[in-house]
Amino acid sequence: MARPTDTTRRNAATGEPYHPHLEPRYREIATFLRAPLAECLDDLDIALVGIPFDGGVSNRPGARLGPREIRNQSSLMRSIHHVTRQDPFAQARIADIGDVRFSSVYDLERVSNDIAAHYRAIHQARVLPLSAGGDHSVTYPILRGLAAEAPVGLIQVDAHTDTWDEFQGSKFHHGGPFRLACEAGLIDPRRTVQIGIRGAQNTAQGWDYSDATGMRVMFMEEVEALGIAAVVAEARRVVGDGPVYLSFDIDSVDPAFAPGTGTPEVGGLTSLQALQLVRGFRGLPLIGADVVEVAPPFDPNGNTALLGATLMYELLCLLAAQAEPK
Amino acid sequence: MARPTDTTRRNAATGEPYHPHLEPRYREIATFLRAPLAECLDDLDIALVGIPFDGGVSNRPGARLGPREIRNQSSLMRSIHHVTRQDPFAQARIADIGDVRFSSVYDLERVSNDIAAHYRAIHQARVLPLSAGGDHSVTYPILRGLAAEAPVGLIQVDAHTDTWDEFQGSKFHHGGPFRLACEAGLIDPRRTVQIGIRGAQNTAQGWDYSDATGMRVMFMEEVEALGIAAVVAEARRVVGDGPVYLSFDIDSVDPAFAPGTGTPEVGGLTSLQALQLVRGFRGLPLIGADVVEVAPPFDPNGNTALLGATLMYELLCLLAAQAEPK
Amino acid sequence: MARPTDTTRRNAATGEPYHPHLEPRYREIATFLRAPLAECLDDLDIALVGIPFDGGVSNRPGARLGPREIRNQSSLMRSIHHVTRQDPFAQARIADIGDVRFSSVYDLERVSNDIAAHYRAIHQARVLPLSAGGDHSVTYPILRGLAAEAPVGLIQVDAHTDTWDEFQGSKFHHGGPFRLACEAGLIDPRRTVQIGIRGAQNTAQGWDYSDATGMRVMFMEEVEALGIAAVVAEARRVVGDGPVYLSFDIDSVDPAFAPGTGTPEVGGLTSLQALQLVRGFRGLPLIGADVVEVAPPFDPNGNTALLGATLMYELLCLLAAQAEPK
Amino acid sequence: MARPTDTTRRNAATGEPYHPHLEPRYREIATFLRAPLAECLDDLDIALVGIPFDGGVSNRPGARLGPREIRNQSSLMRSIHHVTRQDPFAQARIADIGDVRFSSVYDLERVSNDIAAHYRAIHQARVLPLSAGGDHSVTYPILRGLAAEAPVGLIQVDAHTDTWDEFQGSKFHHGGPFRLACEAGLIDPRRTVQIGIRGAQNTAQGWDYSDATGMRVMFMEEVEALGIAAVVAEARRVVGDGPVYLSFDIDSVDPAFAPGTGTPEVGGLTSLQALQLVRGFRGLPLIGADVVEVAPPFDPNGNTALLGATLMYELLCLLAAQAEPK
Amino acid sequence: MARPTDTTRRNAATGEPYHPHLEPRYREIATFLRAPLAECLDDLDIALVGIPFDGGVSNRPGARLGPREIRNQSSLMRSIHHVTRQDPFAQARIADIGDVRFSSVYDLERVSNDIAAHYRAIHQARVLPLSAGGDHSVTYPILRGLAAEAPVGLIQVDAHTDTWDEFQGSKFHHGGPFRLACEAGLIDPRRTVQIGIRGAQNTAQGWDYSDATGMRVMFMEEVEALGIAAVVAEARRVVGDGPVYLSFDIDSVDPAFAPGTGTPEVGGLTSLQALQLVRGFRGLPLIGADVVEVAPPFDPNGNTALLGATLMYELLCLLAAQAEPK
Amino acid sequence: MARPTDTTRRNAATGEPYHPHLEPRYREIATFLRAPLAECLDDLDIALVGIPFDGGVSNRPGARLGPREIRNQSSLMRSIHHVTRQDPFAQARIADIGDVRFSSVYDLERVSNDIAAHYRAIHQARVLPLSAGGDHSVTYPILRGLAAEAPVGLIQVDAHTDTWDEFQGSKFHHGGPFRLACEAGLIDPRRTVQIGIRGAQNTAQGWDYSDATGMRVMFMEEVEALGIAAVVAEARRVVGDGPVYLSFDIDSVDPAFAPGTGTPEVGGLTSLQALQLVRGFRGLPLIGADVVEVAPPFDPNGNTALLGATLMYELLCLLAAQAEPK
Repeated sequence: MARPTDTTRRNAATGEPYHPHLEPRYREIATFLRAPLAECLDDLDIALVGIPFDGGVSNRPGARLGPREIRNQSSLMRSIHHVTRQDPFAQARIADIGDVRFSSVYDLERVSNDIAAHYRAIHQARVLPLSAGGDHSVTYPILRGLAAEAPVGLIQVDAHTDTWDEFQGSKFHHGGPFRLACEAGLIDPRRTVQIGIRGAQNTAQGWDYSDATGMRVMFMEEVEALGIAAVVAEARRVVGDGPVYLSFDIDSVDPAFAPGTGTPEVGGLTSLQALQLVRGFRGLPLIGADVVEVAPPFDPNGNTALLGATLMYELLCLLAAQAEPK
Repeated sequence: MARPTDTTRRNAATGEPYHPHLEPRYREIATFLRAPLAECLDDLDIALVGIPFDGGVSNRPGARLGPREIRNQSSLMRSIHHVTRQDPFAQARIADIGDVRFSSVYDLERVSNDIAAHYRAIHQARVLPLSAGGDHSVTYPILRGLAAEAPVGLIQVDAHTDTWDEFQGSKFHHGGPFRLACEAGLIDPRRTVQIGIRGAQNTAQGWDYSDATGMRVMFMEEVEALGIAAVVAEARRVVGDGPVYLSFDIDSVDPAFAPGTGTPEVGGLTSLQALQLVRGFRGLPLIGADVVEVAPPFDPNGNTALLGATLMYELLCLLAAQAEPK
Repeated sequence: MARPTDTTRRNAATGEPYHPHLEPRYREIATFLRAPLAECLDDLDIALVGIPFDGGVSNRPGARLGPREIRNQSSLMRSIHHVTRQDPFAQARIADIGDVRFSSVYDLERVSNDIAAHYRAIHQARVLPLSAGGDHSVTYPILRGLAAEAPVGLIQVDAHTDTWDEFQGSKFHHGGPFRLACEAGLIDPRRTVQIGIRGAQNTAQGWDYSDATGMRVMFMEEVEALGIAAVVAEARRVVGDGPVYLSFDIDSVDPAFAPGTGTPEVGGLTSLQALQLVRGFRGLPLIGADVVEVAPPFDPNGNTALLGATLMYELLCLLAAQAEPK
Repeated sequence: MARPTDTTRRNAATGEPYHPHLEPRYREIATFLRAPLAECLDDLDIALVGIPFDGGVSNRPGARLGPREIRNQSSLMRSIHHVTRQDPFAQARIADIGDVRFSSVYDLERVSNDIAAHYRAIHQARVLPLSAGGDHSVTYPILRGLAAEAPVGLIQVDAHTDTWDEFQGSKFHHGGPFRLACEAGLIDPRRTVQIGIRGAQNTAQGWDYSDATGMRVMFMEEVEALGIAAVVAEARRVVGDGPVYLSFDIDSVDPAFAPGTGTPEVGGLTSLQALQLVRGFRGLPLIGADVVEVAPPFDPNGNTALLGATLMYELLCLLAAQAEPK
Repeated sequence: MARPTDTTRRNAATGEPYHPHLEPRYREIATFLRAPLAECLDDLDIALVGIPFDGGVSNRPGARLGPREIRNQSSLMRSIHHVTRQDPFAQARIADIGDVRFSSVYDLERVSNDIAAHYRAIHQARVLPLSAGGDHSVTYPILRGLAAEAPVGLIQVDAHTDTWDEFQGSKFHHGGPFRLACEAGLIDPRRTVQIGIRGAQNTAQGWDYSDATGMRVMFMEEVEALGIAAVVAEARRVVGDGPVYLSFDIDSVDPAFAPGTGTPEVGGLTSLQALQLVRGFRGLPLIGADVVEVAPPFDPNGNTALLGATLMYELLCLLAAQAEPK
Repeated sequence: MARPTDTTRRNAATGEPYHPHLEPRYREIATFLRAPLAECLDDLDIALVGIPFDGGVSNRPGARLGPREIRNQSSLMRSIHHVTRQDPFAQARIADIGDVRFSSVYDLERVSNDIAAHYRAIHQARVLPLSAGGDHSVTYPILRGLAAEAPVGLIQVDAHTDTWDEFQGSKFHHGGPFRLACEAGLIDPRRTVQIGIRGAQNTAQGWDYSDATGMRVMFMEEVEALGIAAVVAEARRVVGDGPVYLSFDIDSVDPAFAPGTGTPEVGGLTSLQALQLVRGFRGLPLIGADVVEVAPPFDPNGNTALLGATLMYELLCLLAAQAEPK
């Protein structure tokens, strides 16, 4: 790993140098986790990326505003982890590289291509992406950008398997990215685990697809019965040793903790369980990660974006440890 | 059981047929659980009923708006249960029959009589009612309508025993329905279990009444210590084999999960515990059920009404299984 | 005009007849203005229609939830107008016919076709449509359904001329419906008036298009300087005697009065001005009207949906008077 | 007039004296306008009274929480008027005497009697009451307490005439207090003016009653057309020289300014118009005044209670000037 | 212990006596836990005190409004504990003595001195203080007032150790009170336990200080793994038999339960855990207690203030039992 | 004037160039008015500056979060003015230079010095500052930085004259900046106009100071009576031809339009009046301007920050026109 990014900034008027992490949290332009802004991928180990798109939702929209508000709340984050004392900013070169651009937000297939191209560029630069959605439809094109060479393992924390087929005439909606990824050979279903699944459905199609392809579906009831440590162990068993992508849909968490999402399902994870789950994956060879479905218009007290920001910090710790051998 | 209701609707302009469950959730007039509207009780197994009345509260009003908002949030519900794969809509003929009417919302005794008459008609039609309150005062007249023949067992999930006597000159308030029901011989106190009780009181009168009459009071501390499975077992032991009514007061749930209620008490059930509790009563011979005390004005993110709607779905699964042998 | 609709309903349990307008407002399933639900267009003069679509927005989404919440707030509406003592329900047969259906909410062109087909059916049945959006992109296909025979006049109350060209690769977004309608010969630009326009733009393209085609653009500053009576007079002069469509974008109103919209512009109409403006068009030969861009997720106290519902009532008065000679 | 109340308080721990008006606004127990609490009526000119009752509403409840929240927001009030430089606290002995007590909040007639007895005691002590509701049903019993000797004049600022007859089996609801007061000879209809009336109704009964008895009804359109100065002149002409009661229903104000109320009607007064209207009545021989229908659950930013508190301050200035000759 | 305070009040208008605990909760001036207001410390065992100061926060302000809103929500509290049946109001003389006064809210050192003087007076009167903050900076001067004779034990429930050094040029901020207290010999670090600690930090300075001085730091992960009973046992072991102060920072609780605070950290205690933790300290020789960092502007549904009020009630039970031998 | 800033940005991953103004508004890091970020003052005509400080408030805090949220809402702004067709970005080199830094947020005098130094540097670089507060105490040190050479004229739009003396032991609070500025010879009181003043006060001290020094105080009642055009004329008469600073306190606007502020006063300006007032000052030789007292915690629907952003855009148009001759 290269030397960490110099995060020192200078006061534009006075030239005075300062460190953004040591400023009051309400100061400064809001970037992800108070990381520096980067205008290119040079000299980076980890890129923090926003994907402000929610054109794939089937229910309540608003996740397009997710990256903006996660950036805002992430100013509350700090650097040294209270359990591990790890400081990702001391380990890796990290920057906020802004948001994905879209040539047409009204065309799901073009959006998918824009996102894929964006992540292909990041992947080619050998930078690890940590992304904030946007709705869950964005993870399929992320995987198109990162996993074109060979299928990867997948840890998906979610209330829904997101392996449904066409809805309202499109396959590119937020209920189907992992069916698409599986069909495209981007993920290995036998190295895929889906954690926190719950809520009634109108057809069993998605659950059945996950089962039929060999994905390991851990419904919420199993998660609660086993406890997080056992869930982690089982998930690690499933994904094995190969490269893994981790996708965290905030609707896996109970709406008491994360109300700001498009398709809330009561009876989910607590925040503490969510944090412990993510921490459990330390050491896995991650090729990237995302936090999706944070919808600020349904989040009057900001808790959902704050949890999203905290999960990004936890994922950053995983990726920064991962970045080290580079 | 008869064949399920045909839930197909037709587009009023084009005549095109469609199934409401398969539409985007934000489409359509809001009915309970996207069930069809019925204008009479013919050909129904289960009636979904709203009781928009909160004249019996002792503290913050607003539950009169509960049925409206539960209907709204219940559009997020779907049909096939993720644990049991049961589809209540495939098992029973289910409809939203609208709200109870009141001859005078200003007179608690007349309201009680109006509700009793309404449920008497439902009962006589051999239809099972699943109701959304309204404050908890409504359960006494529901029982007047359903349990006139003989005392029934009662499963009451609640922060309060609601066995207090007169308050402010009336017995018909929301703190006393189960004392009234017991005095009127509508419930059998020895087949009555009260789950989730907590919060200080100014007199011990209600707790003492429950004890004195032989009701089984499970305070929240006992619920937490035993775990839901053991609570279910104990409750089933108490109610035995006879007919049972289930009344779910949303204030049994912690205000973090269900802030929208008139008399919140911190330190309650989680949503997941609430769902597991209800599911535990599968197979009991239920004569009806209700979810009460959802007060939308205190529910800025809609979580309480969403939980209320989900509990209605879980209760519907119990009732639909119950409806089958008919 | 035929006899008004019989709005009497019957209590499903007891069979008791009642009039929904005389019930407490929080009772009953929420339909537009407490009108009866209709399952076909027979025997109707005026159809109240929801268009829950916001896929055409360029900024904040949420208007797909508009019809649902306008229906909810419209329970506060009553029948006899306080200025004119007109009772539209006594003059015309009026029903809520539910929402437009979409074959694919992800494809703006198909949505446009679905809406056009819906309104074509309404138009062919000689029913006047009064619609609640949805974003403003829906008005172009409404006009496709209603104005195919010959260009109509247009009264557009709006903060934006909505005559912009392609954005993000599409012409079907909410900033362009009146350019499309003009190009398609559905509206006559010389019989078009745009009232309340304001807010900076990144290009003058839309304003220029309105000017170039001869539309009468009344910026907010002119509206305020002239006063509503003079604005009405000028608008009536512009549209003349022929058939007219009236489209009311709620963002014409100041965000203090109508915060719940996707592209708010401060410095707009007051509610009182908005009501007086609509009332001023009594007697014009309207072929339909709509209220669009109500976005409930940004409307924490419900004022925007309440204003939307009140505007629907005022428009209903115009249409019911209009329906009379039929 | 006697010497003003000594408003000095003492710090309970240190004994240090201080003046509550000069403290930071967020300090101290919340009393109306930071007035001292009184436990009896001795040595008072003006009593500030809360009436936390909303059992008379026909729509959304919540006004029972009005006195609490008006007290809270009224800490923002200060003493010297910015237009007149009047300081009511220097002119009159003023105290918050707490809330009316109810023997039964569930019985509208007993509530009416409790309120009447409360105001009879205040009236007999020759103290002028300035009250905060509560719903508008409370003004009838206030008048029973204050105007038993002879009919008084009435200035009613309101969206509704509140002269309707029985609703849902009761005459004591918030839509009828002035019909009751008129029938009971407590107000003189020819000395009654109703300002700001608007909104459709299901029957014209209330408007007709006001007309038939000779009340002067100023609909909102007339108010807007005339301007506040002319409205004041007309109202003063109507009430003449005799004793007058002033009742201010917050729903007279537009919901943009006062969303927190049970029956909002768009298109109302601005706050500035409301203040100017009240100020216009300086010098009239007022026997008391009230501000009613502030419903905090519908007031997410507190504006309605703040306006209610400011109106109480303006009314206090009228009453304090009135108290002087005593 | 002396006889409990006579909590009877009299209606100011009618002279009628009543007991505030038996009134509807929304009636009456809001005092802490509906206790009587006291104007001096005579005849008191326990003083309820507000400290409306948040000048020491490092992030989001608002806790200055905490005492006001905790008083408001505490009207929901009642007297008899549902687990122990203890009635603190029957055991001790309890009053709300109002808020601490400040000579300058802009000068942290003077504020510290004002608070210290206030508590010195309370301590000298042999009254036990139960306080509501305000930010956590207030606990240092409270300890200056109470623990001047000898270092006391400390139970601190908190997400942060609050043992950081100077920030932004001051030592008197809310991140450092326990370092100051330790340096000043007010607390014994070996009799100090910090429970619920979590969240990343930019330096490990505070954690290191706690470790170096021998404080027992129980991070949230340990709390969750041990369970509350074991945490209580460990805390009791640490503090031993001597006098103890208990300080409860509401940010120890998860933001799902307590969003209204300045520095929220996801993954904290549940409300039920918080209550059980406090109850576990029954019988310890407490010299006072506080609940701090409730910030109402971030608490849209009031849950945080309600939890704060409930914690005050639980602490009052501890103190009242404690007050008995006096 | 130099050539406008090149506002083109490049996508960090793909290198693709784009113009931020033409992107969807929810994309991108939030800067003031979507201006580029600058790290020094070189090549700038106008600097957009945030001052996240609210330590000077006397009542409700929260304005420290103002710059963050105004940046967020300002993404809704665009470039070409709808009345004048002016495009400030085509006229001047404009950048967001971030926030003022503080050496100690807890010491009002040091904060004042930090701000003064910041603006001195801007002034020396011959850049015009357009600032977003923060509370109004910041304008005194801004003037220290900009007006050290000679007293300037002042246009202050505000509900309060902010010419009070010491409060709570300090002169540096938000109620006194213009007294300090006057005493320090930074503003010429005879060239000072204060517009929109209203609300009761506990002493007349501030009003008297304004009068005694010859400031022109336009109370809200005068503003409403004259109309905005006449107010503009009078203000221009007062300030004459010399250099002028314009300070806009958002509390001048009515809380219906701008609820998110610390000391709201009902009965203020409308948004439209506020915009027209600012526009009226086109052509005056401005040395800078600010918008202060936007407090997001009290702004649940974002209207206040949106109005603040729009006012910044209007002020930018004034300054950009002003920048031209350079």
